[in-house]
Amino acid sequence: MNKSTDGFQWTEAAGLESGLPTLGAIQPQQRITKPKHSFDVIVIGAGYAGLTAARDLTTSGHSVLLVEARDRIGGRTWSSNLGGYPFELGGTWVHWNQPHIYREISRYNLQDDLENSHDLSGGINSFVLKEDGNTHNFTRAQEGELMSDLIGKLVNVDGALGRKLMPMPGSPSLGKDEIFAKYDAMSLADRIAQLDLTSTDKAILEGFLSITCGSKLEDASFGEMLRWWALNNYDMQLFMELCLTYKFRSGQSNFARKFFDEALSTGRLDYAFRAVTRSVTDDGTSVTVTTGTDKFRAKRVVCTIPLNCLKDVSFSPPLHPLKLEASKLGHVNQVSKTHVECANPELRSLSGTIARPYDKLTYIFGDGTTPAGNTHLVSFGSSLDGVHLQAEDDVEDTKRAFRAFVPDNQMDIKRVVFHNWSRDDFSKGAWEWLRPGMMSRKPYLDRLREKQGNVHFASADWAFLWRGFIDGGIEDGARVAMDVKTDLARIAGRSSRL
Amino acid sequence: MNKSTDGFQWTEAAGLESGLPTLGAIQPQQRITKPKHSFDVIVIGAGYAGLTAARDLTTSGHSVLLVEARDRIGGRTWSSNLGGYPFELGGTWVHWNQPHIYREISRYNLQDDLENSHDLSGGINSFVLKEDGNTHNFTRAQEGELMSDLIGKLVNVDGALGRKLMPMPGSPSLGKDEIFAKYDAMSLADRIAQLDLTSTDKAILEGFLSITCGSKLEDASFGEMLRWWALNNYDMQLFMELCLTYKFRSGQSNFARKFFDEALSTGRLDYAFRAVTRSVTDDGTSVTVTTGTDKFRAKRVVCTIPLNCLKDVSFSPPLHPLKLEASKLGHVNQVSKTHVECANPELRSLSGTIARPYDKLTYIFGDGTTPAGNTHLVSFGSSLDGVHLQAEDDVEDTKRAFRAFVPDNQMDIKRVVFHNWSRDDFSKGAWEWLRPGMMSRKPYLDRLREKQGNVHFASADWAFLWRGFIDGGIEDGARVAMDVKTDLARIAGRSSRL
Repeated sequence: MNKSTDGFQWTEAAGLESGLPTLGAIQPQQRITKPKHSFDVIVIGAGYAGLTAARDLTTSGHSVLLVEARDRIGGRTWSSNLGGYPFELGGTWVHWNQPHIYREISRYNLQDDLENSHDLSGGINSFVLKEDGNTHNFTRAQEGELMSDLIGKLVNVDGALGRKLMPMPGSPSLGKDEIFAKYDAMSLADRIAQLDLTSTDKAILEGFLSITCGSKLEDASFGEMLRWWALNNYDMQLFMELCLTYKFRSGQSNFARKFFDEALSTGRLDYAFRAVTRSVTDDGTSVTVTTGTDKFRAKRVVCTIPLNCLKDVSFSPPLHPLKLEASKLGHVNQVSKTHVECANPELRSLSGTIARPYDKLTYIFGDGTTPAGNTHLVSFGSSLDGVHLQAEDDVEDTKRAFRAFVPDNQMDIKRVVFHNWSRDDFSKGAWEWLRPGMMSRKPYLDRLREKQGNVHFASADWAFLWRGFIDGGIEDGARVAMDVKTDLARIAGRSSRL
Repeated sequence: MNKSTDGFQWTEAAGLESGLPTLGAIQPQQRITKPKHSFDVIVIGAGYAGLTAARDLTTSGHSVLLVEARDRIGGRTWSSNLGGYPFELGGTWVHWNQPHIYREISRYNLQDDLENSHDLSGGINSFVLKEDGNTHNFTRAQEGELMSDLIGKLVNVDGALGRKLMPMPGSPSLGKDEIFAKYDAMSLADRIAQLDLTSTDKAILEGFLSITCGSKLEDASFGEMLRWWALNNYDMQLFMELCLTYKFRSGQSNFARKFFDEALSTGRLDYAFRAVTRSVTDDGTSVTVTTGTDKFRAKRVVCTIPLNCLKDVSFSPPLHPLKLEASKLGHVNQVSKTHVECANPELRSLSGTIARPYDKLTYIFGDGTTPAGNTHLVSFGSSLDGVHLQAEDDVEDTKRAFRAFVPDNQMDIKRVVFHNWSRDDFSKGAWEWLRPGMMSRKPYLDRLREKQGNVHFASADWAFLWRGFIDGGIEDGARVAMDVKTDLARIAGRSSRL
């Protein structure tokens, strides 16, 4: 299998190595069959937004050049098969209530490729909370009730668990009413301060929220949480089912390949990997994209560069001031996600949180059983108390942070796998979570969605419905592809009348 | 606006008239630009499955002839604008948890065209139950709790409200396990007989179920109800939100036109309305479709004729025996759906059920306010106690059945609008609801989904996820379009090597 330079793996035999095999690494890394100035569309970025746009445009007859800074497709979502088992380095879980991704799962006949991450059949089948040096053990049912109660308190701003405030989380009008603006202006920390909670309850809630927003709670909008809650149908059990339960047996990169391969099968897709876009210049008739080593030109560009990186590219004419301001503010999610494979079948049903003092990893659960019969655990960490995991800096300390979740630190770790998103130049963070006020104070999202001249912008970071999710990337890629098709049809109509 | 011969309208001024104006009636009714034997694909049926297939195939470069028996697009889903207000004659409500339709709503930028049918702001804001000549009044909150309790009892076969039995309602493996087969073999009546209910509770439950399945409860699979319940996330409030709440301000026919117009804009769509397919003959290389007046030929056919009508068309080679048997058995839904516009603003928040003795209409609720300031009420009837509404036979009796829901029969009816699906030759019923055992006893659904030679079959009636819903039609149209594209690409590859 082809290898990406992204990601890290540690094993006893090889120690820490960078780079991981993945179905997402395309060989050869470049295919340019057309003159470099002759494309209908250049799509910048091969995450789900870019893949969807490239597929929709090539299958509808347009020539597309896909330009990607990395050596692989998938952006913030990709998987590596190690020991015959897919480790998800980024976006993972999906659900049939997420319309844009599930439409693709149906269309590619992958419905039965979904499986449940969780297996509550035995072993240490409990929710472990470490707080101030003490360990509390809850049953998984107690964990469910507790989380439901705590998140319920958090979101119950309207006496209807958020349903009155936000009946339609995908509405383009979202964020434009004053009551919502009030909550969006609050941080998660502001909101927690309004609640009457025991110290333990507060620790559990903060632990969960910290890895949901991936930042200090002071920096994260409470409005985003209300939006997530509405998307998850105002129910904690559904929140878990929709966001953290069903994943692909074959891994996300296998899924991403379906888009890429369909586009390629049209014969209209050219592509260049390891091509970092430096500038995008629109002369009013066509757009030139300059990478580190090359120049390409097309009638239209679809730019899928994430919010946190837009500011790093030179646009001419310049980016709309609100686009640039939003990118400079950035979203706040710098969550870490780290996997271990361990020879501890008794940990398959584990769930746990470490709170106060926060460790480098905050939340853990059993995510699968590998072909070797080992347990796969996934763990998330955030930056509460100024602690942030940089897993590759000291892999022994990373393993220690994993072992801290289990009694007597008994974990026989065979493999550690991760991608450090906070040090990734091409995403500068994980899934989108905006700062307080960013949804409502200025029309950042409206502006981010707008095309400028011949340059269109697509990203999960400003999708309407599941913003910040894979689903949102597919949604926005399809939206923009449709816009570009309409534009190109108009041009074609005009030139045929000349 | 163009008019369809489908549907009926009564007004005081004009009396009962057949035929309704609709955006779905295409003029001219025929456009044949290519030789009749030269199409890549003939799509039979212009409901959502056929529209989706025709759009997906034309936009990906194939020539398509769309053949439709009616004079309009939309199949079992269409709207008529009367007095500046869209009346939905068939399928109506949609939700962002329905992936295939919502993907299209996003893609066509119609998110803000959705509105809530319900307005609980005042007037007779209660749930009225008529039973054995007595009238019970419940608050809408009581109605919600009561329905939640009753449906909860019905579906709680596993101590987990159906979640354990059916965690993934869209799985292609659904119906293949023995426990589910046991419930699928039961009718709704069988299941109700297992419950310990008061007479009033039983009346409410039966009333609701009768218009959910559209048949006598003895004829309707309980397995279908478990499936609907799982699709609605195991929650009665979500059931109402997903199935009966959000509709298009511009009406379903406006939405359907988006598919048709996109296909047409490619220049690759020909079509013939009022063309009833009599036979489909596959000679192994191409397929001939014979309508009442014409013969057309294509490399492939996508047949979207509904389950209850498949048996009416002559196929050569013949339909797979299980396809034919399933069509002869048919699904059981013969629900009636009738609208009134009445000069009674106080009825906007009405909800009501008439049960025991059952009247011709069973369930009613306020569905909108028309530009004239009138209330739009929608009502469903089924065939309990052998009573079935044929609304056009005696429109005075139809109005009587509406008035029976309100105190002292006070309803000033200005307009009655309906489509009688039980007398519709091209659908022979409403949304799909299978008989006991049909999901599990024989692999009917698997066979219905299979292509035979060069003929592919698509319908909401055998979709994987929201089977029986608009969403399912779009799902299955996209699935089959993908199959056809793959087939045609293989042929093209083969011929290019010759």
